[in-house]
Amino acid sequence: MSEWKNLTKSELLEMKSAYDKKYEEFKGLGLKLDMSRGKPSPDLLDLSVGLIDAPPTWTAEDGTDARNYGVLNGVAECRRVFGDLLGIPEDLIIAGNNASLELMYNAYMRLYCFGSLGSKPWKDLPNVKFLCPSPGYDRHFAISQAFGTEMITVPMTADGPDMDVVETLARNDASVKGIWCVPLYSNPQGVVYSDETVRRLAQMPVAADDFRIFWDNAYGVHHIFEEHEIADIFEYAKAVGNWDRIYYFFSTSKVTLPGGGTGMMAASPANVAEQLRHMSIQTIGPDKLDQLRMAHYLKNAEGIRTRMRMLGALLRPKFEIVLDILERELGGTGLVSYIKPKGGYFIAIDTLEGCAKAVVAMAKEAGATLTGAGATYPYGRDPRDTNIRIAPTYPSTEELGKAMELLCLCVKRVSLEKLLAEK
Amino acid sequence: MSEWKNLTKSELLEMKSAYDKKYEEFKGLGLKLDMSRGKPSPDLLDLSVGLIDAPPTWTAEDGTDARNYGVLNGVAECRRVFGDLLGIPEDLIIAGNNASLELMYNAYMRLYCFGSLGSKPWKDLPNVKFLCPSPGYDRHFAISQAFGTEMITVPMTADGPDMDVVETLARNDASVKGIWCVPLYSNPQGVVYSDETVRRLAQMPVAADDFRIFWDNAYGVHHIFEEHEIADIFEYAKAVGNWDRIYYFFSTSKVTLPGGGTGMMAASPANVAEQLRHMSIQTIGPDKLDQLRMAHYLKNAEGIRTRMRMLGALLRPKFEIVLDILERELGGTGLVSYIKPKGGYFIAIDTLEGCAKAVVAMAKEAGATLTGAGATYPYGRDPRDTNIRIAPTYPSTEELGKAMELLCLCVKRVSLEKLLAEK
Repeated sequence: MSEWKNLTKSELLEMKSAYDKKYEEFKGLGLKLDMSRGKPSPDLLDLSVGLIDAPPTWTAEDGTDARNYGVLNGVAECRRVFGDLLGIPEDLIIAGNNASLELMYNAYMRLYCFGSLGSKPWKDLPNVKFLCPSPGYDRHFAISQAFGTEMITVPMTADGPDMDVVETLARNDASVKGIWCVPLYSNPQGVVYSDETVRRLAQMPVAADDFRIFWDNAYGVHHIFEEHEIADIFEYAKAVGNWDRIYYFFSTSKVTLPGGGTGMMAASPANVAEQLRHMSIQTIGPDKLDQLRMAHYLKNAEGIRTRMRMLGALLRPKFEIVLDILERELGGTGLVSYIKPKGGYFIAIDTLEGCAKAVVAMAKEAGATLTGAGATYPYGRDPRDTNIRIAPTYPSTEELGKAMELLCLCVKRVSLEKLLAEK
Repeated sequence: MSEWKNLTKSELLEMKSAYDKKYEEFKGLGLKLDMSRGKPSPDLLDLSVGLIDAPPTWTAEDGTDARNYGVLNGVAECRRVFGDLLGIPEDLIIAGNNASLELMYNAYMRLYCFGSLGSKPWKDLPNVKFLCPSPGYDRHFAISQAFGTEMITVPMTADGPDMDVVETLARNDASVKGIWCVPLYSNPQGVVYSDETVRRLAQMPVAADDFRIFWDNAYGVHHIFEEHEIADIFEYAKAVGNWDRIYYFFSTSKVTLPGGGTGMMAASPANVAEQLRHMSIQTIGPDKLDQLRMAHYLKNAEGIRTRMRMLGALLRPKFEIVLDILERELGGTGLVSYIKPKGGYFIAIDTLEGCAKAVVAMAKEAGATLTGAGATYPYGRDPRDTNIRIAPTYPSTEELGKAMELLCLCVKRVSLEKLLAEK
């Protein structure tokens, strides 16, 4: 198929009339499809229902009665499962409750209210800026926005954030205080940060002495087609004395059950001590019985990896449907570009400029809900209006096939209008 | 026994030498006793181990799959258990994770960072003051202190905070932004707020339009000798249009298991909507599986009340030992004053002025740990140095007897020194 931009007006008009008819047919089906949020489907959850049972004991390995108060940083066996998996010493890990998002929000809030390691609280600064590699995760950006941070969009490349842009901004402007990162199978594109990107993030000179990398390794073990590993950012940071720069987050929400998983934060000794100091005011400690459930159920890194292979096997057909239909319907048209993710939870496509909003609205009208166009950019504004996030994990393969056909159809129709207007 | 202040110097000296000897004997015993924190003992926890099991279903009554994401305000059946118990409509309740302290901290933090219902954030005000009825709960005061609030000590009476003082301060100073309250069996004295106190708190004129009562009903069902009920503060507040003034907190930490309980916040519709707006940025939602465990295990108000009667039966002998030994050893001496609590988790005594710190230090030296003297006052400073908090719930009755004998002995010795110095 030749690229559509090279077609004649009459060719385009002919196609438009055919696709208009097809779209009306879709509307007649009364579909109700949802590809909007990164939720696991029931069959993924079924793999982990053993987590809901009582743990074999409520006495932690150090003798702590997990039924009672105490243990601010989480029970040791739970921290060790995380540590074993991620290669982080367990005493640099704080295990929390079910939501790692809450750990990120709280860490951000503490920088805003109290500062960190002697720095000025961000609330007392005339301007605070944060780097937001985009497309990215809307809930990250929502935290920055809630605290009045000025968000700076940084383009993504196939190796992670555009590091030339990141380095220039971080080096020259002391009000640039940090960056949001999803280093493995990024949300929504599935980008794997290269070793060199990780090294540069950890080691680049920055103007702000309280610069923080929010390293949200949400998909750190979520392999689907290939098993990638991300470089050890702590290692790179420690080597040049930048250890305090890293706030590392992970959770089992998408390993076991989002409704009852376990989140964690890891950081340098100084940062961990500081977080615990604040936490000692905020909480009496995490749900230790849940942490024992997690530790006894997952056991160790191998326990998690085995589980992730099972999850990957269930996710693979869903990702294949999305990628196959994209290729079949839009391959060679020049109407979309995308990275084929090797893991994670999402696929993102970029349409022709100025088309994403219209595509999402048109799909919605015919019964397929997608993440709102623009949501993957700071302030919900995609400057070129091209990015659409596809979340294939929740629908059944059948629903997904239907929804993808509809989506591709909408891409074609909206693109046709754009191309015709330009003729 | 005549009051010791009326004894002659030689009588006092004689007693001192006898008590010095007794104290040395205690030191020789190598005791290790802890009456410092309000922790339940293992036999109290044993009553609730069924909570640890899997709930009978992971499908909530409205069809929600509790294993998955969603439901920011908590599953309905869990909110209904709270509502049934406390007489609050379930849609005005937000059910959270295990720590109600975290809900209080977060509510306070939101007032500080964002303000409430259109008011200015407290961080942007030159001065914010908070009323702290004292003796009170050290962790409440720690939250105010963390956010740089100026804490104002308000005396406690047998009916709750001295309302004349509270009303005067709240009415005349717009920088007075709220008050900490533990209305039933207050920590540490066990005071029950009278209906009139509750009414005045709810209805008093205040200068600050964002005045907030942090109503921590931590011991709302913790009856030991008598069953008291606290007046409905929402009712009083609603009647005069002050509904938004109340933030109500409760948790099952001391109903079931502190290591895996469920906390909640209740408030006016406007406040609930505002909290949920902030929470939608901070978290993906609470641990819904834990909430289902709670709802299915406790069932309803009667389920909780039955459990509390069993807990009360286990706590009663412990409180009796403390009260009996206080009466036997110190009754009529004029060395201490205290309220006999009818429920809750603590007993507080007031020594002669300037003696509490020395008593706690002396008890510690002989092996009995008490809550640090002063901890029950803002900034950890008891202005008259008289208040000592006794937490009788964790030790066995035998340990408790020993610890109380030692405590009374230390009170006598320190008081003797004071009385002798004044002769």
